[in-house]
Amino acid sequence: MTTVAPFPAHPSDAPSTSGHADYTPDELALDLRWWAAANYLTVGQIYLRDNALLREPLRLEHTKPRLLGHWGTSPGLSMVYALVNRIIRRTATDWLYVTGPGHGGPALVAAAWLEGTYSEVYPHIAADGDGVRDLFRQFSSPGGIPSHVSVQTPGSIHEGGELGYALVHAAGAAFDHPDLTVACVVGDGEAETGPLSASWRLPTFLNPRRDGAVLPILHLNGYKIAGPTVLGRASDEDVEAYLRSQGWDPVTVSGDDPDLVFPALFDALSRAHEQIRALQAAARSGEGPSEPVRHRWPAIILRTPKGWTGPDVVDGVQVQGTNRSHQVPLSGLAENPEHLRLLEEWLRTYQPDELFDTTGRLAPELRALAPDADLRMSATPYANGGRLRAELPPVDLAAHEVPLPSRGTTWVENTLSSGGLMRDLYAATARPDGGGTFRLFSPDETASNRLQSVFEVTDRNFMGPLLDTDDHLGPDGRVMEVLSEHLCQGWLEGYVLSGRHGVFATYEAFAMVSASMAVQHVKWLQHAKDLSWRADVSSLNVLLTSTCWRNDHNGFSHQGPGLIDCLIPLAPDVVRVWFPPDANTALSITDHCLRSTNHVNLIVVDKQKHLQYLSLEEAHRHCAAGAGVWDWASTGRDDEEPDIVLACAGDVPTQEALAAAELLHEHVPDLRVRFVNVVDLMALLPENDHPHGFSDSQFDDLFTKDKHVVFAFHGYPRAVHQLVHGRSNPGRFHVRGFNEQGTTTTPFDMVVLNGMSRFHLAKEALRRADRRPDGWDRLTRLCDDRLAEHATWIREHLADLPDIAEWTWKERADNGAAEQPGR
Amino acid sequence: MTTVAPFPAHPSDAPSTSGHADYTPDELALDLRWWAAANYLTVGQIYLRDNALLREPLRLEHTKPRLLGHWGTSPGLSMVYALVNRIIRRTATDWLYVTGPGHGGPALVAAAWLEGTYSEVYPHIAADGDGVRDLFRQFSSPGGIPSHVSVQTPGSIHEGGELGYALVHAAGAAFDHPDLTVACVVGDGEAETGPLSASWRLPTFLNPRRDGAVLPILHLNGYKIAGPTVLGRASDEDVEAYLRSQGWDPVTVSGDDPDLVFPALFDALSRAHEQIRALQAAARSGEGPSEPVRHRWPAIILRTPKGWTGPDVVDGVQVQGTNRSHQVPLSGLAENPEHLRLLEEWLRTYQPDELFDTTGRLAPELRALAPDADLRMSATPYANGGRLRAELPPVDLAAHEVPLPSRGTTWVENTLSSGGLMRDLYAATARPDGGGTFRLFSPDETASNRLQSVFEVTDRNFMGPLLDTDDHLGPDGRVMEVLSEHLCQGWLEGYVLSGRHGVFATYEAFAMVSASMAVQHVKWLQHAKDLSWRADVSSLNVLLTSTCWRNDHNGFSHQGPGLIDCLIPLAPDVVRVWFPPDANTALSITDHCLRSTNHVNLIVVDKQKHLQYLSLEEAHRHCAAGAGVWDWASTGRDDEEPDIVLACAGDVPTQEALAAAELLHEHVPDLRVRFVNVVDLMALLPENDHPHGFSDSQFDDLFTKDKHVVFAFHGYPRAVHQLVHGRSNPGRFHVRGFNEQGTTTTPFDMVVLNGMSRFHLAKEALRRADRRPDGWDRLTRLCDDRLAEHATWIREHLADLPDIAEWTWKERADNGAAEQPGR
Repeated sequence: MTTVAPFPAHPSDAPSTSGHADYTPDELALDLRWWAAANYLTVGQIYLRDNALLREPLRLEHTKPRLLGHWGTSPGLSMVYALVNRIIRRTATDWLYVTGPGHGGPALVAAAWLEGTYSEVYPHIAADGDGVRDLFRQFSSPGGIPSHVSVQTPGSIHEGGELGYALVHAAGAAFDHPDLTVACVVGDGEAETGPLSASWRLPTFLNPRRDGAVLPILHLNGYKIAGPTVLGRASDEDVEAYLRSQGWDPVTVSGDDPDLVFPALFDALSRAHEQIRALQAAARSGEGPSEPVRHRWPAIILRTPKGWTGPDVVDGVQVQGTNRSHQVPLSGLAENPEHLRLLEEWLRTYQPDELFDTTGRLAPELRALAPDADLRMSATPYANGGRLRAELPPVDLAAHEVPLPSRGTTWVENTLSSGGLMRDLYAATARPDGGGTFRLFSPDETASNRLQSVFEVTDRNFMGPLLDTDDHLGPDGRVMEVLSEHLCQGWLEGYVLSGRHGVFATYEAFAMVSASMAVQHVKWLQHAKDLSWRADVSSLNVLLTSTCWRNDHNGFSHQGPGLIDCLIPLAPDVVRVWFPPDANTALSITDHCLRSTNHVNLIVVDKQKHLQYLSLEEAHRHCAAGAGVWDWASTGRDDEEPDIVLACAGDVPTQEALAAAELLHEHVPDLRVRFVNVVDLMALLPENDHPHGFSDSQFDDLFTKDKHVVFAFHGYPRAVHQLVHGRSNPGRFHVRGFNEQGTTTTPFDMVVLNGMSRFHLAKEALRRADRRPDGWDRLTRLCDDRLAEHATWIREHLADLPDIAEWTWKERADNGAAEQPGR
Repeated sequence: MTTVAPFPAHPSDAPSTSGHADYTPDELALDLRWWAAANYLTVGQIYLRDNALLREPLRLEHTKPRLLGHWGTSPGLSMVYALVNRIIRRTATDWLYVTGPGHGGPALVAAAWLEGTYSEVYPHIAADGDGVRDLFRQFSSPGGIPSHVSVQTPGSIHEGGELGYALVHAAGAAFDHPDLTVACVVGDGEAETGPLSASWRLPTFLNPRRDGAVLPILHLNGYKIAGPTVLGRASDEDVEAYLRSQGWDPVTVSGDDPDLVFPALFDALSRAHEQIRALQAAARSGEGPSEPVRHRWPAIILRTPKGWTGPDVVDGVQVQGTNRSHQVPLSGLAENPEHLRLLEEWLRTYQPDELFDTTGRLAPELRALAPDADLRMSATPYANGGRLRAELPPVDLAAHEVPLPSRGTTWVENTLSSGGLMRDLYAATARPDGGGTFRLFSPDETASNRLQSVFEVTDRNFMGPLLDTDDHLGPDGRVMEVLSEHLCQGWLEGYVLSGRHGVFATYEAFAMVSASMAVQHVKWLQHAKDLSWRADVSSLNVLLTSTCWRNDHNGFSHQGPGLIDCLIPLAPDVVRVWFPPDANTALSITDHCLRSTNHVNLIVVDKQKHLQYLSLEEAHRHCAAGAGVWDWASTGRDDEEPDIVLACAGDVPTQEALAAAELLHEHVPDLRVRFVNVVDLMALLPENDHPHGFSDSQFDDLFTKDKHVVFAFHGYPRAVHQLVHGRSNPGRFHVRGFNEQGTTTTPFDMVVLNGMSRFHLAKEALRRADRRPDGWDRLTRLCDDRLAEHATWIREHLADLPDIAEWTWKERADNGAAEQPGR
């Protein structure tokens, strides 16, 4: 027996740093003024539409009719921004700012304006008083910008709406960016979410040799919308122990006096920066493989009041330091002149006349606080990843082609050659420092999903202790496996938005775990397209394997094609859904998707062995077309209308449809069957609804205008129903697909239970066909008999009928062979 | 300013317990034999189809053709089961067993068989040797059971397929069940997921006075499918600190010698049980309000080898204690006779002849180890919640009716009266001990979603330190707010599956965060219906508010009706989707859903003020019908076919459709417009596809056979497209719905951008109508003009045009008034 390995604790002492950072009173004074400017601009965005710099007394008509936005978290975000800026200016290092409490959008917009970036990317928002007014007016206003950090915010790779992903996005940006430090503010509300809670495990996956650093700043202001937060009410001791136990070396900074908090936070940031550099220097000085990290990474716990510097008590009720300052601490301005007066008083505490010159430009000494050019966090190319992105090098796809001695006769895992492609991409993009620009992310399923070729050139990433029995595992590995779809997908999102390439490969059913993240990423890309200053980023590629059709033994929890339905309704400029029927089409599509930009590509293909149908050259053409007739599986003359169209999308459906076509050909040779394979699902949509959508004439050329179509589909049947709405006679589309029938079955019994077996398809084709040629009755009976026989057999033998399990396509003399037989 | 509150740490000392539990060598010997029996039955399920008790030498034909199932985690699960059983027998207390590593399904099936429960609920699986063979054959086999813990497993409320929810389900079962202890095994793979990571925060929400206890057993066997786990390789010190910092008092038990591990684990379980009882006794002895919990809850960290007692080294490779024993440690039996020999050797190590008598029944002294009747964890009614469930008491709905002086003229928050209903349910189900049988779960949005009436009778639940400024917050509160959709939904799932009632209320867009959980819950209920021994449980009710149409100011991340599309394709026996157009319909539907069983109800209704259309009596009738013509908003005679059908589903769509109907009536009075409102979306499905589906004649009566239908829909338009597929001329359905156009707008501009405004709808109706009566051109132009006017106005005034924002329905002399005006 193997003993249970006792693993060493991290040493608790951090690397020594140079001690207290010098932070002069002059610097403090300047930083406080910059902070005042940021806070002023934040309040202004929430409240004002005119008299932006308070050059006259505040009147009701200067305020907005709807008061929207979140004040509570904003001052903390701006303080961190100001002090990280000082670190950047001192060290000339690259920093990216990820703000989990993204509802504090006006604070980040304010910072970008103060640094000049905002007016550079949005010339209609000038760097003067008119610009301040326009900045205010556009905030959370018609035609303007959302109220939280979003794709429109310069310097952001992170939408602040759906909480939970700050640390995974920060981590994704830091991987393979050795010179980057990501300051990542985590709100104590967000810290209650699942994804954020799991993402504290980053130290197990971050390699100081080739990766950059993430500096988490856990900002505890104590409240969410309507009540306290868990961590906000926890003791310093517990919060520190929580982070420390997960590989961090936290220091707590707390207080409500800016004169004390600013120096303390600057000190913490300086020490953290030095700690990071020391860790990295140690890791980068060695030869040979990386060591597991022996020290913890720095982290900061920051406790400041919610709504800091805002109204303290309103109408006799405590507002500052409570959830009452979460959004708009003063409202009802029209009904309550006292509130209007308090607003003006609040705004004037920032002394705008001391911050902005007579034209409304920021005072020169405050402008000088901005780092240079691309070092400004609002202008860093790390947050506009297309500026850093290099095209993937070409790969010899032919080297991964699955040979095709004849159609439908050889069995190959459909994901295997895509794994070979990924191996080549790992190799071709590797850097001397051990990093690279391509990564595969997967919840522990790389080998299970038959992508194991990548382990020929890299390992699984793991910074923890290693054992002799470990398999392709180590700190230098760059395949990211963690049993969290949220972490996998979030890391990939951060990785591609900061200019790299990658794939998230996962079980089809469990892709639903991070479905909301996919939806939000689509929205990000959709709106990024409207922003000329955002450069193109690599697509987010989601490879769904271990699909519903081959999770029979795992039962119903592992069966679910729902992500397809989630993505179909989203932005057509972004969403692509692919159903490669075999390995060469999978290879062609995977390569295409990896090289594409600004899309979310869903590739659905099973990891198990399947029959192979197309040469690589044919696959390229078929995938480019999106859908097409397979003449070699059709019957009847080209110039004749078919009696019935047999269509399919997906690997298992294609096999069953082909077997059905063969049954029809053998038993009802007079029936004219057109065989259509759909590889690009969006081709079914009307051309006005999707860039890949077929025109009506293309569609009718494929499916005819009025013949019945028996459609074998990988997913839920109604996914196809919604796509063909608006085509001629959509009611003639009879879709067989996944319908939640399976529990524990055999592979073929799954398709039987779901009504998509060759026998069901053949029967349906007979039923729907225009004519009843000879053999009609006999085949109908045969199908019924075979289904009954199968039901008995599998219960006795616990496996499919051999002639079903071993079925292969019989090439016909009268139809086209593979183009390159024997390749 | 408010200072930043320093909160006290939990004291680190646990309540004293009575010390080392006496555990005799005889008890150990018996428990080891029971464990051997469980392990034997586990291996047998994975491998054997015959010769189940090895009464003859093992031959290949006794083994299964496909080897499926997960061995690695199973021995640990069975050990915990054996020892908790001993606690139960000693203390006669109620325990529920939740197994996060649910892939260890055969272990739980084995335990249920050993306790006799399996044969009781499945009489075809006898309690003798034939039953053992049948138990083996059915496992992961055609017509049998899935390979992991599932709804088919007696004693389970937790499907072990999609990982992450063990602790939330355990917690949900423990809330308001003061006599229950839930032993919850958390696997170290699952511990990497987001939802599980967040769920360690349970001590902040569990009240020892009125709630039961959850005893987490973090089982670290070190590996997932293909590599080590994060916690498996962490030090004891770090893992203990991780749990300790979150409110637990963990003790670590580790080893690979059963003779040592069994007593150590029994000791840990005994101490934990005593600690729990001490905590509860202290909490239950006091008068007045509960105190925040000052002590930590016990927890156990268990380190044992993966695949314990299984093959150690196979083909010269270490298997036990590594990920190689995750699933099937010996495979290829047909090709490798040595593996078959090893399998027999392994099975015989458990000495089956010592465990089972000559008829194959479990030895009497091992049968005697099972607790009595319902105290058996496989038979506990807590895991078959319908046995505990009491119907909700009736509530006077009329007391919550929104008065309707006339149709479409008063503005009320559509969720407000549902909040009143929930308040009454809290009050009516409250128990003297402070518990009850109804709870509302929400990510911090109860008040934001206008359900604040509940705070008249209870508070937000929070066991942490309180401050004077807190609002309706405290340990005795039973409204569950935590900023995690996963926790909210998972807690509710555990709560209803263990026999209670509840609602999960959340922002529509962020309901997608836990969409995969909703899908899995549908699957659970779908398969529960096939099990006669599972009693009916309350439906899972998901109230989606803060909908896409009124999150204009928050921007695109807060807009998303995608959960509708996720649920539509799922089991029709389970799924219901409701679109109440106003407050009285919302009240009627919410009451109906809360009293229903075995469904997942999605109720989509906005929290903001909306116009009111139906009296409560009318609402009941309309909701029961599912959809109907609103005569008072239609034009033309009843006996005439309309020129056009104007349909709607959802509150905002109903308002816009009504305003469009009014425009048509005013400007094109000759046009016959039929107004249809759909409240039960599933009514659109064919009657064979859903129990609520309308027959074709019902459908045609409503929508006609061939007239064009302009449909204003709350969600993505293609959701309706898929539902009407197969109806007569589905192409005549022209759906306007959400289409991802909004970013920051005003409410009405949202509907303008999405093309669902009254002007768009009226234009579309004119375009699609059969005739072009007088006024056609004028109204078309008017619509265009108003849209242009609006676009200019909102950018200037940052608000909707007043006549749009303040529009109300004008009751017509010729049409029906509300039934009970003035109520």
